[in-house]
Amino acid sequence: MKFIHTSDWHLGRQFHGVSLIDDQAAVLSQLIDYLKQHPVDALIVAGDIYDRSVPPTKAIELLNHVVDEVCGALNIPMILIPGNHDGAERLAFAASQLKASGLYIIGSFDAMTKPVILRSDTVGEVAFFGIPYADPEQVRHHFSERVSDFDSAHQVLVEQIIAQRDSSMRNVLISHCFVDGAIDSDSERPLSIGGSDRVSHEHFLSFDYVALGHLHQPQYKGAEHIRYSGSLMKYSFSEQHQRKGVTLVELTKEGPVCIEHLDLRAPHEMRIIEGELARLLELGVSDPKREDYLLVRLTDKHAILNPMEKLREVYPNVLHLEKPGMLIGVENPMGQAKLARSEFEMFDDFFAQAQGDSLNDEQAQAVHQILKQLQK
Amino acid sequence: MKFIHTSDWHLGRQFHGVSLIDDQAAVLSQLIDYLKQHPVDALIVAGDIYDRSVPPTKAIELLNHVVDEVCGALNIPMILIPGNHDGAERLAFAASQLKASGLYIIGSFDAMTKPVILRSDTVGEVAFFGIPYADPEQVRHHFSERVSDFDSAHQVLVEQIIAQRDSSMRNVLISHCFVDGAIDSDSERPLSIGGSDRVSHEHFLSFDYVALGHLHQPQYKGAEHIRYSGSLMKYSFSEQHQRKGVTLVELTKEGPVCIEHLDLRAPHEMRIIEGELARLLELGVSDPKREDYLLVRLTDKHAILNPMEKLREVYPNVLHLEKPGMLIGVENPMGQAKLARSEFEMFDDFFAQAQGDSLNDEQAQAVHQILKQLQK
Repeated sequence: MKFIHTSDWHLGRQFHGVSLIDDQAAVLSQLIDYLKQHPVDALIVAGDIYDRSVPPTKAIELLNHVVDEVCGALNIPMILIPGNHDGAERLAFAASQLKASGLYIIGSFDAMTKPVILRSDTVGEVAFFGIPYADPEQVRHHFSERVSDFDSAHQVLVEQIIAQRDSSMRNVLISHCFVDGAIDSDSERPLSIGGSDRVSHEHFLSFDYVALGHLHQPQYKGAEHIRYSGSLMKYSFSEQHQRKGVTLVELTKEGPVCIEHLDLRAPHEMRIIEGELARLLELGVSDPKREDYLLVRLTDKHAILNPMEKLREVYPNVLHLEKPGMLIGVENPMGQAKLARSEFEMFDDFFAQAQGDSLNDEQAQAVHQILKQLQK
Repeated sequence: MKFIHTSDWHLGRQFHGVSLIDDQAAVLSQLIDYLKQHPVDALIVAGDIYDRSVPPTKAIELLNHVVDEVCGALNIPMILIPGNHDGAERLAFAASQLKASGLYIIGSFDAMTKPVILRSDTVGEVAFFGIPYADPEQVRHHFSERVSDFDSAHQVLVEQIIAQRDSSMRNVLISHCFVDGAIDSDSERPLSIGGSDRVSHEHFLSFDYVALGHLHQPQYKGAEHIRYSGSLMKYSFSEQHQRKGVTLVELTKEGPVCIEHLDLRAPHEMRIIEGELARLLELGVSDPKREDYLLVRLTDKHAILNPMEKLREVYPNVLHLEKPGMLIGVENPMGQAKLARSEFEMFDDFFAQAQGDSLNDEQAQAVHQILKQLQK
């Protein structure tokens, strides 16, 4: 029994005002190509399929295309749970009707306790249970149980599932939560402001595999079989060194779970480049990946006219620009950063770039006088 | 072969700020009860299932419930097309997967030429073709045909369908459009501003039945089998005398189509009541339908303090108030209506109601003086 575990597709996401839908489509098409070559028994998406509860039409069309390819053409069942970004009711429309075609959307507490059971030749029947993302309030209200935080909510939910579990077969759990001690990235939306959103991995120990969503970095926590696949692609510059992809899981007859990370490559990586403008422009000309989504940190110590425009002539997808070279005091995180150059020096830089010549003495004096007046 | 033709559910609609979702649920539950007693071979919804392309969650949950009952529990196929209020891509998510469960959503031009074929003992196979709502621009773009208005667009679309039609079987067409000469109501959203949105009924003559949506009044146009079921319930006060419900259609072995209108009753009717306040309040006490959604026309000729508050004590769902008794000149539609009472008379009315006594001479003189000053 082999299945792919993935999560946090965030279809429809924008990044610095740029739609990522074409990148998402390209990455998903790599996944579909993999499945064509290496059929598996199921594809699991552990929440945050869409980036918001009301996704844009293009995101719906993309998911529709994936479902047509995977459930339709390849006849591979898909099992989905909503994450904190999804609208559970919206995502789970016609969930009962969709089961017949192998599209399982576990969008309610009722559906949570009814596993999707898939058969395999090697390990017999395997039960897949999914927990639709819910906040503690919803769990308290629905089960009339004492629930004060995400951890106690998860305890109630997992108990419900364990009560329905048939321990003669393998059991896989799918959940969208923040396991205590795991590593977060910059692109996840916090589950709770103020309260604790952490969940102990101990709830999950008795399952054969736990397919987690929410955290964007691939990792396991507590035990190797309690695992985040990580997001489909990078969603912040701080993820530049994370390996993005999906997790291939195999439940073997002998017992242990085999786990493999499969890389997926977005057409545009998210990267940070740093240096002086002239040097970056020079390097860019021969950079085969110059169309990546870039955060540029300019270390120049003088003011530059239209740096974004100059950079985009070489790197068309510069999305954010920082000028640490123009600041002093940034080493001290508590102190406020100050401009490293005086107003006069900045104007002098500007004049030189705009006119191709430096200020002469008379001009310099005039600027000094104007600045003095303004400072009064 | 019997089927129900309905349209224009507008799930999620608001009326004068009031959500109609509970009324819609009640009316749909009558329809489900009917189907339990009198099974049919299909339920057709000819567009405007939702009131907007991004419907509220409650509307999605209601449609989900109907689908569970009709396609699920009763095993009756449903055939849906998007109308001008629906978002076709959003509505048709996973349409390919849903077919297996008997939920057919015809949301694209591709799906349009592939009929839903249902079998019956009496008339053999029947093909149901649906035209997803599209404006002329979309038709022109997709088919690269000369299309300037809704009529020429419909001609292109119907020709596409006729080319795929097997005339050895009965053929039913579903469309959401404005057939020329048919009667509109106040609650439809115009398909076109400025251009012509009318479509000739002649495109439809060669089908065995044409299930139309868009117009909210049940009617046929051109021939008895080219028919609007009308909306699920009233959506404007001007529809107060329309009979709302669904159309039961039977294709008989002998050829003719039997058509029957089945009434559905909303818990709150939309009605206009007219008269003097005191009389309306008196009548209301013994009015078993006083919780209806009401437009009240007060014919009183003097100003009344807080009339809405007084009316709502008896009629809790007064949604709109008109005071024709306070206007003169309304008979002349070109002339501007004027208040029938002077400022002084209005204040005199107000004073009497607020204080329980008329203005005395001194008070009257003071008011006259203030009004004179204000008029300057």
